[in-house]
Amino acid sequence: MTEGDTGDGFGSEHRMIIEQVRDQIDPGAAERKAMRQVTAQLRNRITAEIESLPVDADIIQVGSTARGTWLAGDRDIDMFVRFPADLDREVLEEYGLTIGNAVLPSGDEEYAEHPYVTGTFEGFEVDLVPCYDVDAGSELQSAVDRTPHHNRYLQTRIGESTAAAVRVLKQFLKGIGAYGSDLRTRGFSGYLTELLVVEYGDFEGVIKAAAKWEPPVEIDPKAHGSAAHDDPLVVVDPTDPTRNVAAVCSARNISRLQHYARQFLEEPAQTYFTSPTETTAKMDSEVVRTHLQRRGTSPVAVVFDSPDIVDDQLYPQLRKSIQGIRTALEAEGFDVIRTATFADDQAVLFIELMHRHCPAIERHTGPPIAVREHASEFYTAYESDTDTYGPFIDDDRYVVERERTWTDAAAFLRSEAIFDVGLGAQIEEALADTYTVLIEDDITALTPEFGESLTRYFEPTA
Amino acid sequence: MTEGDTGDGFGSEHRMIIEQVRDQIDPGAAERKAMRQVTAQLRNRITAEIESLPVDADIIQVGSTARGTWLAGDRDIDMFVRFPADLDREVLEEYGLTIGNAVLPSGDEEYAEHPYVTGTFEGFEVDLVPCYDVDAGSELQSAVDRTPHHNRYLQTRIGESTAAAVRVLKQFLKGIGAYGSDLRTRGFSGYLTELLVVEYGDFEGVIKAAAKWEPPVEIDPKAHGSAAHDDPLVVVDPTDPTRNVAAVCSARNISRLQHYARQFLEEPAQTYFTSPTETTAKMDSEVVRTHLQRRGTSPVAVVFDSPDIVDDQLYPQLRKSIQGIRTALEAEGFDVIRTATFADDQAVLFIELMHRHCPAIERHTGPPIAVREHASEFYTAYESDTDTYGPFIDDDRYVVERERTWTDAAAFLRSEAIFDVGLGAQIEEALADTYTVLIEDDITALTPEFGESLTRYFEPTA
Repeated sequence: MTEGDTGDGFGSEHRMIIEQVRDQIDPGAAERKAMRQVTAQLRNRITAEIESLPVDADIIQVGSTARGTWLAGDRDIDMFVRFPADLDREVLEEYGLTIGNAVLPSGDEEYAEHPYVTGTFEGFEVDLVPCYDVDAGSELQSAVDRTPHHNRYLQTRIGESTAAAVRVLKQFLKGIGAYGSDLRTRGFSGYLTELLVVEYGDFEGVIKAAAKWEPPVEIDPKAHGSAAHDDPLVVVDPTDPTRNVAAVCSARNISRLQHYARQFLEEPAQTYFTSPTETTAKMDSEVVRTHLQRRGTSPVAVVFDSPDIVDDQLYPQLRKSIQGIRTALEAEGFDVIRTATFADDQAVLFIELMHRHCPAIERHTGPPIAVREHASEFYTAYESDTDTYGPFIDDDRYVVERERTWTDAAAFLRSEAIFDVGLGAQIEEALADTYTVLIEDDITALTPEFGESLTRYFEPTA
Repeated sequence: MTEGDTGDGFGSEHRMIIEQVRDQIDPGAAERKAMRQVTAQLRNRITAEIESLPVDADIIQVGSTARGTWLAGDRDIDMFVRFPADLDREVLEEYGLTIGNAVLPSGDEEYAEHPYVTGTFEGFEVDLVPCYDVDAGSELQSAVDRTPHHNRYLQTRIGESTAAAVRVLKQFLKGIGAYGSDLRTRGFSGYLTELLVVEYGDFEGVIKAAAKWEPPVEIDPKAHGSAAHDDPLVVVDPTDPTRNVAAVCSARNISRLQHYARQFLEEPAQTYFTSPTETTAKMDSEVVRTHLQRRGTSPVAVVFDSPDIVDDQLYPQLRKSIQGIRTALEAEGFDVIRTATFADDQAVLFIELMHRHCPAIERHTGPPIAVREHASEFYTAYESDTDTYGPFIDDDRYVVERERTWTDAAAFLRSEAIFDVGLGAQIEEALADTYTVLIEDDITALTPEFGESLTRYFEPTA
């Protein structure tokens, strides 16, 4: 047991802070009543529409509002209409839209795995989603068919106090920037949050456990996991033995939960429950300039118009692109200190290098002399190359110093070579259109648009 | 079998070239006769001196002139006077010097493990060394006592044709710069050369074997090796089961023999028998400048007066010093392309860097978050350090970007920090006196003194 472990657990101060948080995030009686009323109305309207169709179907409310785990002020209601498993898929989609458009006449048709309708109902944001009534696990026809099973699993396990703990954990995850399974955040989903609280009993249980996690961590509530996952956190879906509910969670967000769990245990404070997106100041060009001078590094930024795609497409592509650039620059001999991607109307692939320039030559070590055939091939390849220094022998190997392809990272990024690094598809299209490479003091031109992103970059916190 | 292996072996061209080499290096009849005569005179003189002492001793001629393996023009004669094993060491030393000074009246007293006298006798360079008459191996009182045993072992095994092969191999090793067990060269000693020829039968045998060596190579002529050696080439001394005759051989020189053996097999030429020290041109400052510009690197040179010590002390200390500097600079984040040491009246520690400057910050990666105690210590150490960026989380670890101690390699070398890198003792003394750090174009000031060394550096061959 480490010193930090002894006495781990919540004291009166922790409990006081949690009470203060709960005052803000627990939906009040009026809000609950409104929610109950609107939900009942909505059910009635949907039932009426189902009855006008030549099919049997039932209604299941899912998500946080179904389980009492929503945060005060959230106004999202998720209603699933469940059709028989033998219904033709096209018919299901047609019926789903018919009901949705009737109940939410001013709504929009969206598309997940089935089309669904999203719209406003009595001031609440409603998703009205059709799905199949199938058994859990392998018989699922699509991912949305899983949702009612999640609901059934949790509804018996989340009572009033558990729901309250879920809300506190959600707010904590929001506060530390790790809430949300969207592909920008790659954090903890609502369902995952609920499973963690059920697993560890309450908020304190989750915090104490996370503080001690030694990834890979595997949680399998139904002890039925049947697939291997290469993820730092594995929470086997109680309704699907093959699925890791935490698959989308990045190592960083798991580490972040661990970090802040320990911080909170040690020194509880309300700040952990305050979203950083609400508090990040915009850095201006003068401050950016000061940081650049203080760091003495060579930042390079590829700037282009954001492609017109949703965040769940954009962010993975930005990550793929910056990783491709990083790998390519490192292969060319440039040392990368840190990278980042920013996106707004424009998007930025930001690379901070040790040096923008490399010498004209690079060392290239050949095989050991003892490996005769390879060694001879290497020697022969360079023997009469007048652009190359060597081959000479260093210890037991041939070495040459040959001309480097790229001596300027900015020139590399400005060239056609950038299209060979494995960019995201839509990023590649956007760059093919036009892009700019900023260097040195021009980096300050990323303000004011990316002032907050630059604050996060130059004032990094856990 | 690789293609290069098929048909490995000497053809008529190889034999012709070896004949041409032998014409130059085989001592002629007159030289042999002179050697015989001088040796006989020397023995007589020594015998007379021994007879005037109250002790029994015999005379053993050792080394290449004893075994007929000397190269034409070599005028070194090694005579050992062997005293009874029970003779007091001080008495042995006294007698040794008495005989030496009498026989070589204009000679100098030198010191190996015993003092000995070196001087000129009838135009030949004579070493006259006292030693003990002891059995081989563990009973040796000092390393020189081993020499007569080497002699006895080889004398029965080196006939006329083997001696000729030894001479050819010696000349080949000289030609490729790998001959000599001094600590500057770290190459093949005469004794080692002889053992290799005895082992592989003739020059062709050695060349064919070396071309195929896959280090570590172990040769144990008497199959009595009793010690483990961490050397790429191990030739167990036939007169001492614990000793590796090739211990001083550097990996580079072994690789060099392998390389040139293959080259010679493939395309025989006389040039392999021509010493590079006879052919290296002196590079002038203009050519140095051209290379520096072409390479685009950042060379730094520490220049100081050579300490007044013998090469066998100087070169190991130079190597230790440059390795210490390299390690220290790499630890500070500088990338080293190549290093070298030059020595004449002045000595030079030469370091060629990717960049002379590094940014003001350096990335410092901490422990994985999962390793709670270490991670917390790391976090606490940097948490309130305002000179540090972070700690932030990257994947599953804490990271900080902290101020770099040294951003200029030349400033590092000019500072007291150079005395902490593990310099050789006399190098440290010399630097404590005074030294200069040359950068950029000032490197050209190393000409003309180090013109040949710079040629070897900037026009490296195997």
